[in-house]
Amino acid sequence: MTVWIDGKRNDLIDYRDRGLQYGDGVFETMHVGRGAVRLLDDHLARLLAGCHRLRIKPPPVRTLRAEVARAAARVDGGVLKLIVTRGVGTRGYRPSGREHCTRILALTMSATQDTGAPNPVPVRVRICRTRLGINPVLAGLKTLNRLESVLARLEWRDPRIWEGLMLDDDANLVCGTMSNLFLRRGSLLQTPLLDRCGVAGVMRRWVLRQARRLKLKIREDRFQLDHLADADEVFLTNAVVGVVSVADIRIANRHLRPRQFGAADELRGLLAAL
Amino acid sequence: MTVWIDGKRNDLIDYRDRGLQYGDGVFETMHVGRGAVRLLDDHLARLLAGCHRLRIKPPPVRTLRAEVARAAARVDGGVLKLIVTRGVGTRGYRPSGREHCTRILALTMSATQDTGAPNPVPVRVRICRTRLGINPVLAGLKTLNRLESVLARLEWRDPRIWEGLMLDDDANLVCGTMSNLFLRRGSLLQTPLLDRCGVAGVMRRWVLRQARRLKLKIREDRFQLDHLADADEVFLTNAVVGVVSVADIRIANRHLRPRQFGAADELRGLLAAL
Repeated sequence: MTVWIDGKRNDLIDYRDRGLQYGDGVFETMHVGRGAVRLLDDHLARLLAGCHRLRIKPPPVRTLRAEVARAAARVDGGVLKLIVTRGVGTRGYRPSGREHCTRILALTMSATQDTGAPNPVPVRVRICRTRLGINPVLAGLKTLNRLESVLARLEWRDPRIWEGLMLDDDANLVCGTMSNLFLRRGSLLQTPLLDRCGVAGVMRRWVLRQARRLKLKIREDRFQLDHLADADEVFLTNAVVGVVSVADIRIANRHLRPRQFGAADELRGLLAAL
Repeated sequence: MTVWIDGKRNDLIDYRDRGLQYGDGVFETMHVGRGAVRLLDDHLARLLAGCHRLRIKPPPVRTLRAEVARAAARVDGGVLKLIVTRGVGTRGYRPSGREHCTRILALTMSATQDTGAPNPVPVRVRICRTRLGINPVLAGLKTLNRLESVLARLEWRDPRIWEGLMLDDDANLVCGTMSNLFLRRGSLLQTPLLDRCGVAGVMRRWVLRQARRLKLKIREDRFQLDHLADADEVFLTNAVVGVVSVADIRIANRHLRPRQFGAADELRGLLAAL
């Protein structure tokens, strides 16, 4: 792994950084292929929106673009993580307003990253007991406060289970621990509303933009678990791994086995052509 | 400020530490006076309970006690912050189970810390718009996921307002951004239940233990805002500043002005004698 902090090769962070003290920051996890970051504009837009919501003064976009380009150059298959924290602070929750944000870029090379190639093997998923707290103030953001995801991911060790789906405190389906959820029924493509919790993924946003091309109608709404049984097709999205079909959902001792993979196949094709 | 990381003088943290990546850790903020930490046993008990809930293997208590004693020695008036994170991890939310926790101790000397002396000036408080998300899995813990407190504390800059009270997503009163809340009505001492959100403070716990001495009955329950108007006395607790009487609560454009300070006075007396 190669790490740059505020533009310099370095992997040590000041203890006083509010990213460590309070999780006071946001991040992006990005796919690198053929020397470039996939969907970079979407990643930067979400990062800046997150900073705005948290009232963190973000780094100049020009700086971020230059540093990302330098890190991704000549890399074919890797993950680039970009963290922006509010920076070093004094004691206490209240930011002084004079903090300078910290930007961290970390590149992990990988030979096994999915590059969006068509037809990867459909995966198995489970339902997590850990719920997502409802808080519209943080909903949709990818902040450094990720303990709910960590605790949900601690629930299983079976490597054959690729992901766990999470419900909110009112038992609505929201997302996976590291992915967003889509259900297709006929020509209707449905995905949970993320106005009260959950992370609004960059790949989710890209899929929603492709809907017209796929002749699908979109609905963002609240869904309960039983809605999964009515779906013809279920898939997950994640900026690094792309679009992942679901073939088996374990709910208590039952298994749902969606049998269609067509929309996800088409999306994988479009993604590979990016 | 003096910082020790894993027992050594150092204030730089590995970028890969899960405390930074996900807020995957817990902390204590402790009052130091006359060369010792006040309520140390309570702080350590809560820290270990937090590690247990998050499935972080904690440092040996003996090590923590030795390092705290060394840091606090000869200090009269200061704040000692102890952070325990899950430690350095690999990519992804799932802990491998092989992480070694990181322990961080940071001492801030202070000439102006309240040392629990009787009768500090009663304070003004306000009601925050930022709500606490409901999540029983994290409720009561002092984790590094503190963005709700940060956003609530960003709501005001007026230095005359000492604290902001926070409601949960169902509009129940829970706590302040950095303190716990007590309401007294006659001989009944009431404090919000913290089974769904909020931080269960060490000073809160100490106050609950003193109730019999003060001939007060305790009730932990859910309270709404209008409950504040019925209280004879309102006070806040915090491990560093002790017990703080409230003289003015601004709710929208109204002001509540509790006129009694007796229970808090008695508690401050007991605390000063510790």
